[in-house]
Amino acid sequence: MKPYILVTNDDGIQAPGIHALIMELQKIADVDVVAPLVEKSAVGHAITLSDPLRVEKFDKSGLWQGLAVNGTPADCVKIALNAILDRKPDLVVSGINLGSNSGINVIYSGTVSAATEGAVSGIPSIAISLTTYTNPNFDVAAKFAAKMAMDLYKNPIDKRTLLNINVPNVAEDEIKGVKVAKQGMANFAEKFDRRVDPKGRVYYWLSGSKNMIDEPDDVDDNLIKQNYITVTPLQFNLTDFSKLDMMQERIAKL
Amino acid sequence: MKPYILVTNDDGIQAPGIHALIMELQKIADVDVVAPLVEKSAVGHAITLSDPLRVEKFDKSGLWQGLAVNGTPADCVKIALNAILDRKPDLVVSGINLGSNSGINVIYSGTVSAATEGAVSGIPSIAISLTTYTNPNFDVAAKFAAKMAMDLYKNPIDKRTLLNINVPNVAEDEIKGVKVAKQGMANFAEKFDRRVDPKGRVYYWLSGSKNMIDEPDDVDDNLIKQNYITVTPLQFNLTDFSKLDMMQERIAKL
Repeated sequence: MKPYILVTNDDGIQAPGIHALIMELQKIADVDVVAPLVEKSAVGHAITLSDPLRVEKFDKSGLWQGLAVNGTPADCVKIALNAILDRKPDLVVSGINLGSNSGINVIYSGTVSAATEGAVSGIPSIAISLTTYTNPNFDVAAKFAAKMAMDLYKNPIDKRTLLNINVPNVAEDEIKGVKVAKQGMANFAEKFDRRVDPKGRVYYWLSGSKNMIDEPDDVDDNLIKQNYITVTPLQFNLTDFSKLDMMQERIAKL
Repeated sequence: MKPYILVTNDDGIQAPGIHALIMELQKIADVDVVAPLVEKSAVGHAITLSDPLRVEKFDKSGLWQGLAVNGTPADCVKIALNAILDRKPDLVVSGINLGSNSGINVIYSGTVSAATEGAVSGIPSIAISLTTYTNPNFDVAAKFAAKMAMDLYKNPIDKRTLLNINVPNVAEDEIKGVKVAKQGMANFAEKFDRRVDPKGRVYYWLSGSKNMIDEPDDVDDNLIKQNYITVTPLQFNLTDFSKLDMMQERIAKL
């Protein structure tokens, strides 16, 4: 039996990454696409509470049809599962994102939040990203997404675990292999570019680059640099379990 | 020496919760306020990359002054730390949110994301919420925020841990005590209300209520129900460490 897969992303339904993903997944699965109408990068796990959501039909040159939603990636998964799809998908696959979702970036990622939303609903879910912003070649990532999806379909993991995959933007024969990676903790050296608009008002643009910190070899960013595909199991209980006892003692003394 | 505290929230700079918090924190600390211009609830850990940020002065009837930013709670902390404040704050305190941030809600919370942003920058951080949407009385929460902030200032925890506090909306003498809690996993039974606008176009409103699931006594929602103030240490490395070995074995067989 074929798996039934819900596909979404955060770059928007017109992005080349979701197209490459769908073309590959259609070979092995029944696919439904519900994705943001416009780019929704760095929206984190945002959901839309104060505005109505609209759903439009989208046709990709006859190659596939989908639904475009004026919301975030998490909105797309929620509305698909609760108002659009006739049956529960076997898998949610989100991507292929343009740009890595690794290190501290994971917490800002719309791509990951869509997969998290799938996992919250008890559906095995995958987020997949290509680690470049320029000259993307989605072939390797799309094929790996299909392979991982099939494996996950046959042997689901714990319901509260999702997989976050990063694929280097190199030719297939330059990929060193696949490794399980931990999320790294490298944050950004943020810069706000201060400018003045034609009316004399100040505004700021956020920019910045990743701080290079010394991290273990098995974190995502370090393995990606060596041309490994990385697979990071993620979960969404943010409790810092290692601090519970210490905090209980502190609170007793407050 | 007084602590220097950055205060923000996700209900917006005009919300009563941030006012109550500031009035109390001003008694023990030097306070700077950088908060969203308008309500930004359920924005998750969103940051604004594609639009410029503007910063406006805000005066609360002479009681305090702050800066309002046309962005998310995480934007406010980022721009405060990197473009506005002259020195690094000792603490970031986010709130007081109208409505609990407990269970699965934590991953959608703008209030928590602001504190996470503080922790990402190595600053001890607190998110605080009042567990009601109606008839809020912020007194108990504001006082507890000041007490916890002072304690955290004197004895910082691990840099990558933030505190997520929920305070029941009852009189001080009805509070049973303070307990350390784990984040619960109760998700929402989502409903999308389908409507047709005057032009005949379909739109959807998201609504829903928390699924009641059987959870241990020491999760946040269960303790809040019993009128305990809950303190949950959170961290932002989403790696599911318990699955690393199993995933490595699976990947070897792909």
